[in-house]
Amino acid sequence: MNEIIYKPVGIIHTPYGNTRDVPIQPVAAKGIKGTIEVFPDYAAGLKDVDGFSHIILIYHFHLSKGYQLKVKPFLDDSQHGVFATRAPSRPNQIGLSVVKLVKVENNILHIENVDMINDTPLLDIKPFISDFEAVEDVKIGWLSKSIHKISARKSDERFGFVL
Amino acid sequence: MNEIIYKPVGIIHTPYGNTRDVPIQPVAAKGIKGTIEVFPDYAAGLKDVDGFSHIILIYHFHLSKGYQLKVKPFLDDSQHGVFATRAPSRPNQIGLSVVKLVKVENNILHIENVDMINDTPLLDIKPFISDFEAVEDVKIGWLSKSIHKISARKSDERFGFVL
Repeated sequence: MNEIIYKPVGIIHTPYGNTRDVPIQPVAAKGIKGTIEVFPDYAAGLKDVDGFSHIILIYHFHLSKGYQLKVKPFLDDSQHGVFATRAPSRPNQIGLSVVKLVKVENNILHIENVDMINDTPLLDIKPFISDFEAVEDVKIGWLSKSIHKISARKSDERFGFVL
Repeated sequence: MNEIIYKPVGIIHTPYGNTRDVPIQPVAAKGIKGTIEVFPDYAAGLKDVDGFSHIILIYHFHLSKGYQLKVKPFLDDSQHGVFATRAPSRPNQIGLSVVKLVKVENNILHIENVDMINDTPLLDIKPFISDFEAVEDVKIGWLSKSIHKISARKSDERFGFVL
């Protein structure tokens, strides 16, 4: 199968200098501030982004090397398929977060609720619409036993095995 | 900046043979069935995915050539920055959809609410957790005037300019 080549459109700056500090889910990142520096070549694409209260960031887990198909998430003691987790050690190391958009100043976006490591390469920004309003009767499989642990904990040295 | 290279982990099969048929948002795709064929090399990563009622698909808009920083979405008469839209003509042509997971049979996932074109290359699957429960007071900028049009319409030949 053909390779797909992307180039970063910006960099995400956060207070998390290393993997140990990174919260394992956005809910644990509430209020934590960061900035996105969109490269000047792409800044025109930000027109009207400031009207949205929340944006979806798609980024590259740049510190994750290689991948594993079975992972033992931070929140659980047994192994799950990587596609049933948010572990960074994925075949394509793509991360996804919804953040609060506070302010846009030229090519700099001020955001809150960041959960990615400092200097993460940004691949895309999408407006958060109410995509998920239509989602009903959500079941969360193996995670249902552990999700109450999320807000209290951060990832630790087991980076690559977080939720 | 360095290039980031991904490889498809599967293919998404849908009833939409061409861009004209594709609904412009998942809400208009409700109940439409499709399948995901995860390549055998990655099938082990599907363990326990079947416990989730909904999954997030990240895929490549393979028919979108080049990009535009300002786009005129299907739902609107004025131009907006591409990052304030879901247009496929993005610097990195990454698509994102939440679909309902009906059944997993080995490396085949049966899904509903599909809104991507047939044979779309799949980059990643993530479990839909309640990521977005914590999102409050959502504002949707330019789209607030037009969003009521979504469910009634499909994309037309102006592919590349859809929401």
